[in-house]
Amino acid sequence: MKFQKNKLNEKNIINNFLKKLNFNKKGTFNFENDAAYLNLINNKYKIAITTDTIIENVDFFKNDDPKSIAQKIMTVNLSDIYAMGANPKSYVMNLCLPSYIDNDWLNIFSNQLKKLQLQYGYYLLGGDLSKSNQLIISATFFGYIKKNLDVFQNKYEFNDDIWISGNIGESKIGLEVLRKKILLDKNTKKYFINKYLFPTPCKLGPKLAKYCSSMKDISDGLIGDLNKILNNKAGAIINIKNIPVSIKANKIINSKNNINLENIINAGDDYGLIIVSNPRYRKKIKNIALDSKTKISCIGKIIRKKGIHFDSQFNIDNFKEFDHFS
Amino acid sequence: MKFQKNKLNEKNIINNFLKKLNFNKKGTFNFENDAAYLNLINNKYKIAITTDTIIENVDFFKNDDPKSIAQKIMTVNLSDIYAMGANPKSYVMNLCLPSYIDNDWLNIFSNQLKKLQLQYGYYLLGGDLSKSNQLIISATFFGYIKKNLDVFQNKYEFNDDIWISGNIGESKIGLEVLRKKILLDKNTKKYFINKYLFPTPCKLGPKLAKYCSSMKDISDGLIGDLNKILNNKAGAIINIKNIPVSIKANKIINSKNNINLENIINAGDDYGLIIVSNPRYRKKIKNIALDSKTKISCIGKIIRKKGIHFDSQFNIDNFKEFDHFS
Repeated sequence: MKFQKNKLNEKNIINNFLKKLNFNKKGTFNFENDAAYLNLINNKYKIAITTDTIIENVDFFKNDDPKSIAQKIMTVNLSDIYAMGANPKSYVMNLCLPSYIDNDWLNIFSNQLKKLQLQYGYYLLGGDLSKSNQLIISATFFGYIKKNLDVFQNKYEFNDDIWISGNIGESKIGLEVLRKKILLDKNTKKYFINKYLFPTPCKLGPKLAKYCSSMKDISDGLIGDLNKILNNKAGAIINIKNIPVSIKANKIINSKNNINLENIINAGDDYGLIIVSNPRYRKKIKNIALDSKTKISCIGKIIRKKGIHFDSQFNIDNFKEFDHFS
Repeated sequence: MKFQKNKLNEKNIINNFLKKLNFNKKGTFNFENDAAYLNLINNKYKIAITTDTIIENVDFFKNDDPKSIAQKIMTVNLSDIYAMGANPKSYVMNLCLPSYIDNDWLNIFSNQLKKLQLQYGYYLLGGDLSKSNQLIISATFFGYIKKNLDVFQNKYEFNDDIWISGNIGESKIGLEVLRKKILLDKNTKKYFINKYLFPTPCKLGPKLAKYCSSMKDISDGLIGDLNKILNNKAGAIINIKNIPVSIKANKIINSKNNINLENIINAGDDYGLIIVSNPRYRKKIKNIALDSKTKISCIGKIIRKKGIHFDSQFNIDNFKEFDHFS
């Protein structure tokens, strides 16, 4: 059947843009069934499941590059899967499409999905198409993790190290550049806008799972997500100097631009990991990050005193909680 | 924390309305993690996955009873899970909520979800909350089915029987009553409106899975869904007299109301099953339905001649395709 531009219907969208994403996996029934089957390799594994929705005018804008929208719906979910210590296997996607979506849009969007599927190794299992007023995309992701492994997001012991992967604040600076609140030269501008439009998940999770008390991706900002981990039952002391900020970002902060360190530690959407782990795994964690060529920084400690406390003097290596707060 | 009316936020919604739905299952992490784990009982099973979205002004109306909206999002998904031969285990839910949603709404909605979870035996694994212009609800369901069992939706052989569970057209009549296109007495009106607002899934699927060539739920109407099964590779002959229509519905059709048999066979949302199966399983299928106290009707046969053909003379028991079309 010839495909007519702007005459979108379910069958055409599936055949022309989505079928390439099932990677011919048997359980998808080539998108011809109302449901799909998911088979794990063997019974040593269980399935990690996460779901996230992104909405026009909230998580992205109508005129954003469809490539960026594809990147965002994949990254928010992949990030959660990795943070649970799992590796992605497949996903289902619910597309609520307003009338302005056309073939060109779907083409760019689906090609970016395919690129990411190949890069991170997973496939589209099925989904659902609807018409709506706003563009709304939900995806539910399935990952696999060893049956006997549980990764928590609010378990820890006093004196546990607090780690962060990658740099924080890059995506936030990109957003402020787009909002014209930060003025930069062309190349630096491009660098940060790219960080905002094309966030990437941190793949360290499955490798670190065995060694952490808690692990969580930073989607709501370092402070917000660390507070979720602490769950008002303990506190954290953070060495400001150890907070990972890139040289480029540091320059912007120091140049009295419309952004400061407080903004950076509250900025979401960088999708690095917060890892809370026993100090005896310090070397192990550093080596895993080194092997994966991923920046990792030990920024602080879990302490009894509730709240998040900053201290540029405190030294992680010589930390003794009771001395410090006596 | 005291819960304030109309001051909805994520934490309040989760704690006050959704937590009761996780049935304290370990893998849900009590909704405190960004993802959940799903463990199958043993490696004899695989997971069936389906996802469906319902949208305000398309699948329901803004002022519909929240109970009915809960019933619909559960039934559309449960129906697909059962039709794949699987039994429901759990689900994740994405709620996109407009500003008019309040505590009362959430209370009625979540209580109906709980009622259905207890009735059909599954729990809420996690989900996602967003603000939106329209009320949009997506759910992704997980069921379990024996590893070596595959239920298809477009496999069949010539001469296979075509079965339907339940009655068709009831939900459609309810909708037309609400649209004031059909005028009925108070009790009959209530009966059909209830069929429209509270559709129920057919649970026969897992019991029939072994004996069917294809199985599919009727969500788009008998003709639409049968055509999907046939997939333009064969046809069907249907005995009009065998099409299951309730006595109540038949009365309406015969009374020259604004609805006829053609409307009924094209009417969706009854969520019965179409089962295509070898005639050697005829007795088996009848007995399974009888045991489950579910009406089942053999309405026709798969034939070589493409299209769906109606013939009130033809007799399923004495059917010989080549005689009939010679």
